[in-house]
Amino acid sequence: MTNAPSSLSNDEAIALAEFACTLAHAAADVTLKHFRSELGVDNKLDGSDFDPVTIADRDAETAIRALIENHYPDHGILGEEHGEKAGTSPFKWVLDPIDGTRSFISGVPLWGTLIALNDGEYPVVGVMDQPYTGERFVGRPGHAEFLRDGQQKKLSTRSCAILSDAILGCTDPAMFVEAGELEAFTDVRNKARLTRYGTDCYFYCLIAAGHADLVIEASMQPYDIQALIPIVEGAGGIVTNWHGGDAQNGGRIIAAGDKRVHAEALTILSRLD
Amino acid sequence: MTNAPSSLSNDEAIALAEFACTLAHAAADVTLKHFRSELGVDNKLDGSDFDPVTIADRDAETAIRALIENHYPDHGILGEEHGEKAGTSPFKWVLDPIDGTRSFISGVPLWGTLIALNDGEYPVVGVMDQPYTGERFVGRPGHAEFLRDGQQKKLSTRSCAILSDAILGCTDPAMFVEAGELEAFTDVRNKARLTRYGTDCYFYCLIAAGHADLVIEASMQPYDIQALIPIVEGAGGIVTNWHGGDAQNGGRIIAAGDKRVHAEALTILSRLD
Repeated sequence: MTNAPSSLSNDEAIALAEFACTLAHAAADVTLKHFRSELGVDNKLDGSDFDPVTIADRDAETAIRALIENHYPDHGILGEEHGEKAGTSPFKWVLDPIDGTRSFISGVPLWGTLIALNDGEYPVVGVMDQPYTGERFVGRPGHAEFLRDGQQKKLSTRSCAILSDAILGCTDPAMFVEAGELEAFTDVRNKARLTRYGTDCYFYCLIAAGHADLVIEASMQPYDIQALIPIVEGAGGIVTNWHGGDAQNGGRIIAAGDKRVHAEALTILSRLD
Repeated sequence: MTNAPSSLSNDEAIALAEFACTLAHAAADVTLKHFRSELGVDNKLDGSDFDPVTIADRDAETAIRALIENHYPDHGILGEEHGEKAGTSPFKWVLDPIDGTRSFISGVPLWGTLIALNDGEYPVVGVMDQPYTGERFVGRPGHAEFLRDGQQKKLSTRSCAILSDAILGCTDPAMFVEAGELEAFTDVRNKARLTRYGTDCYFYCLIAAGHADLVIEASMQPYDIQALIPIVEGAGGIVTNWHGGDAQNGGRIIAAGDKRVHAEALTILSRLD
């Protein structure tokens, strides 16, 4: 999908993207306290079911929701941890405080806090925040940017005309659980220039930044993908399902920086019903 | 292998570890100039064979070698890019300026600059430097530490008694190219708590830091592993080949934070000749 005409004016989109960054900042205060903490070891030893990522996930979402309810009480909220709250406006915040829990658990800084604002039709604002490396990727209609160390840089996907030139990312081939998924992915992978696993939300942002070309995943939830759509599409890329349709509801996802490599991969992936 | 008695006094080891950090710093000046640069795209478009990682690898090793030759002209050097230089002393520096070239190419900050000092018997000093995240891991006999943002922290591996509790890392299952390797790895992976791919040298350091438990790899070169041995072993862990022997020559490698989980994995891996 390319960016649909947004219901927001440019100024409104900028203001809401700034608010989404405030939410990411609040989440970071919580997640960084738990990332690489020694809580995990202690908890494992005492047999408790609580692990640091669960605590961080829940507390970060609580912090985000409190800010939304305070500033935009009419907006709906869908979060991974605390479920859905209906709003009286069409706007809904779609949240995954820690996308990439396995990275988080392992101490690998490729997890991210995902914050999307959906206008009732499509995700119009998205933030991916990686507070350990200090990287933040922000997208809105027609624009995406990278923030680090007080510097701001416009994001643009790079040219990649054919699959054999493409750098492909995928969090884990184990996410292809339905019949035919792994085979379709493998067919694409075998044609790509190189493939990286263990990439989580981070790799979508590398596509937006023009360092990589393609992500193919499955078993995705709406809160896993909605924040990444405005980032990749705002940088000139494309995010769809494996039939080229709307990706916002999750499931089987393909993201690409160049529409040509997206189309070539789709000729393989769309064989699956 | 546990740390062999070192040929170095403690003061000598500290001084050489500091010098290794100077080398890492010199390499970082080169690598950071090329990481996530747009050179790759330009070069691909004009059909040139030069890619940013090759340039960065070569130039970083040149910078490191110049410093060694200036300060320790009698030391030998083995580098991935510029080959071997015999020394007149038993000491030899073993260098991989960019370990994890596929991470580097893809924009993923899990690559590292690896610098080892081998005393003629065993690697006694090791540095893994990740300049984009600002993380440096340093090991020497009986000690390993983590440096970031001017802060220093002693590294200690964590307790992990059994494989079913272990977080396992591996750069890519495609590195298991010899008969039986992938099957042996898969047998271990199926017993582990969770597995992360795409981890490069970074995951060895996460073991040293007590965030993960196990790395299993194959097709390794001496310069891929020597710097990591003093880091993991200095933090209390163990690095061997798949038969429990000396890992410094590369090949099939297992690194663990806890000797019990190392032993359990070896019962599977050592079935291979």
